Amino acid sequence: MGVIEQLRLFLEPRSIALIGASRRTGDGDNVLENLISYGYPGKLYPVNPNAQEILGVRVYHSVPDLPVVTDMALISTPRDTLPQVVGDCVARGIKAITIVAQGLADADEEGRRIQEQVVDIARRGGARVVGPNSFGVANAFINLNTAFVPFKMEKIPVGSIAQSDFLFGGAPRMRMIGKGFDLGNACDVHFADALEYYGADPEVKIIVMYTETIPDGRGFIEVARRISKSKPIIAVKGGTTPLGARLTQSHTGSLAGQNEVYRAAFKQAGIIQAMDLDEMEDLVYSFMYLPPLRGRRVGIMTNAMGAGVLAADACSRHGLELAPLSSGTLKKVSEVQFPWLEPGNPVDIGPAGFSSHGMWGGYRHCLGALLDDENVDVVMVISPGTPNRDPSFPEYVAKAVKAHPDKGVTFWVFSVDVGEEMANRFIGIGKVPAYRTLDRAMMAISRVVSYWDLRDGADGA
Amino acid sequence: MGVIEQLRLFLEPRSIALIGASRRTGDGDNVLENLISYGYPGKLYPVNPNAQEILGVRVYHSVPDLPVVTDMALISTPRDTLPQVVGDCVARGIKAITIVAQGLADADEEGRRIQEQVVDIARRGGARVVGPNSFGVANAFINLNTAFVPFKMEKIPVGSIAQSDFLFGGAPRMRMIGKGFDLGNACDVHFADALEYYGADPEVKIIVMYTETIPDGRGFIEVARRISKSKPIIAVKGGTTPLGARLTQSHTGSLAGQNEVYRAAFKQAGIIQAMDLDEMEDLVYSFMYLPPLRGRRVGIMTNAMGAGVLAADACSRHGLELAPLSSGTLKKVSEVQFPWLEPGNPVDIGPAGFSSHGMWGGYRHCLGALLDDENVDVVMVISPGTPNRDPSFPEYVAKAVKAHPDKGVTFWVFSVDVGEEMANRFIGIGKVPAYRTLDRAMMAISRVVSYWDLRDGADGA
Repeated sequence: MGVIEQLRLFLEPRSIALIGASRRTGDGDNVLENLISYGYPGKLYPVNPNAQEILGVRVYHSVPDLPVVTDMALISTPRDTLPQVVGDCVARGIKAITIVAQGLADADEEGRRIQEQVVDIARRGGARVVGPNSFGVANAFINLNTAFVPFKMEKIPVGSIAQSDFLFGGAPRMRMIGKGFDLGNACDVHFADALEYYGADPEVKIIVMYTETIPDGRGFIEVARRISKSKPIIAVKGGTTPLGARLTQSHTGSLAGQNEVYRAAFKQAGIIQAMDLDEMEDLVYSFMYLPPLRGRRVGIMTNAMGAGVLAADACSRHGLELAPLSSGTLKKVSEVQFPWLEPGNPVDIGPAGFSSHGMWGGYRHCLGALLDDENVDVVMVISPGTPNRDPSFPEYVAKAVKAHPDKGVTFWVFSVDVGEEMANRFIGIGKVPAYRTLDRAMMAISRVVSYWDLRDGADGA
Repeated sequence: MGVIEQLRLFLEPRSIALIGASRRTGDGDNVLENLISYGYPGKLYPVNPNAQEILGVRVYHSVPDLPVVTDMALISTPRDTLPQVVGDCVARGIKAITIVAQGLADADEEGRRIQEQVVDIARRGGARVVGPNSFGVANAFINLNTAFVPFKMEKIPVGSIAQSDFLFGGAPRMRMIGKGFDLGNACDVHFADALEYYGADPEVKIIVMYTETIPDGRGFIEVARRISKSKPIIAVKGGTTPLGARLTQSHTGSLAGQNEVYRAAFKQAGIIQAMDLDEMEDLVYSFMYLPPLRGRRVGIMTNAMGAGVLAADACSRHGLELAPLSSGTLKKVSEVQFPWLEPGNPVDIGPAGFSSHGMWGGYRHCLGALLDDENVDVVMVISPGTPNRDPSFPEYVAKAVKAHPDKGVTFWVFSVDVGEEMANRFIGIGKVPAYRTLDRAMMAISRVVSYWDLRDGADGA
């Protein structure tokens, strides 16, 4: 079986054996209960020697008792039982094994020994292993998430690969899953395998990863270089500083690579490195909602010129330009401004509030003008969060975006109370990225342009 | 009249003449209506030649008609009328004049001429002028805000001074007012004056400013250097880059200073420079809720060690240390962890979820242990946003903070959906800063420590 075909058993299993299924329900930390509540459509076979039935689902006493060969086994039993249980799975012909248990190579020598033994058993039986010390796998497109804590999922075209479970719940503001592999100790299935899988998955357009170490350096870079030419790969590397690196030596059970080596390797592989989850989140939104941007000319609209100045500063810091608006655009802009005001970029929307257009009328009028201007590659809308004044503005934005498929539209909403709600409406309804800060916005936009520059260059070479 | 006494007429007026009061009400952009709805307790005297009464308040036809000499006049009439109106105010003995009108030095030569004329009239009459091109003044402690758009206010000990109205509405997540001067074109009342006032105001503990230019460089630095020894001054300077600087030359009507000169001047004056409003927001929360921190040793708690690694990376980047936990603390921590886990810093809260303590019990237990440890200066709690599992945790945090007045407690909440709500509960109930990103958190903590280092040094010298 090829790696893609075998990994599909993890992300698209038609049946799962839940070995070590818990009888404790109702507190949200039961995998069987979670899978049922998500609406996972496959068959579930809980295994527990001390139960007949959990939540109305028939329970089997052992793996040999299972009536079918499931696509995947999810093992939550203690570490000492693993060689036996994995051996049973392999004997039954199960080819995809996810191990949740902690206390293996992440703990001590005894754990490391057991982990090696388990990998050996699995490999000899032709099975692949995700984990141990892992939440397992997730696929929002079929309502699958094997984490023992409940997660909400969204069908976004993002595939994640992580060594630590904290990427599994999504980034601070977005639901990152999409699809996910939590590799945990990564005893067998590793970054290169998961990359290979996502590279071939038409539902995945963007790949994100959190890594502290990549033991299989060469193979990974080779795969990443190939995949990054068709799908952006965004990586957060933990342990890039002395304090962080000291930690990564212990908790994932292997030595942290040198920061500089990683940076060079990521660059060589076409991987976009993000400092933290927040930067990663910005980049994901940007790649999801911005077209392949071909230029760095930003048109800025703002109702407060101080914010316009800070936006221009952020453009400068990140290698973007203020779009030189065409005379036609300047003329349209001046229609909603004071007669004495010299129109320019940033576009001052404030005066529209004193005219018959009203402030939001000004936003609508000028957004259209900027998007129609051939001198503008991407528009940054700086907006206060007063959604009640023009509740359908996000819908207007969505239409404008659709009508200008080659232009990018981005938002920074600054506002107490409703700012976050408004940002989420722009993202959800407007289908545009809304960033937390102007600096993060300009950094993300700049890196999207760089990605397309590089990719075009690579294609041409 | 001294500058402090005279500026008190702006921020604590017992009566205000609203010259050019609008008859259009109900759309939220009427100053008289806003002041009534805020509950401003002073007397209001609208002036409008075409009205008898607005919202039940008697209207006067002109300034000479006013029955009393008000503490302040707020002028919203067109620019051509200003010399006459300001002259009338001065003639009546009004000593504090706020000019909202735009189109003065911010517009053209004619505007600049009118502005100079108005300043001349005011000065000869012993009046001070805030503006023009300004929202005016605000003081949440007496429900005063003269902006023509409605703002919510909070009685926080923060005084703001801005050249651009966009600081007036608060930073992206906080209500910055407190108290505020929007200097606009800053024709008369300037940064040094407002600093002097806040320096003497016992309700103001932290001063923030947004500036693009400071014409009166020398006097400002002298005042700032004195005030910053008792109150932190945080400044955002717009136009620090080529693109931003090009803009600041036009819209406030004067040339932007050189970035390097500002940086040196701010340093000399003890001013903490922030890149943007978001950094400023972090610093304000930090100074509001953290005690004078004397050390850089951070104790980190997290339920996901990947986040712990990124927090350690952020510590490294910003010159903070991982606190070397005492043996007593490590022993307490190990009580809620797996037996095979070597306790350390960051503290891994994850395993507590598998014990009788539960995850939030683990957070409570370890927060106490870290705060009791003499090796810890500040605690960073990395927390998922699952408030329903332990709804009174923010109250527990508030108590713990109170019981350890020399220690800092900070939060980073990472979570889809409820993260922002949870962060706001920690800020509001827990009285702790909750940051948007780990990097921003560590940067802010580090700068608070630096402030107290510098201030102690300065006091000792």
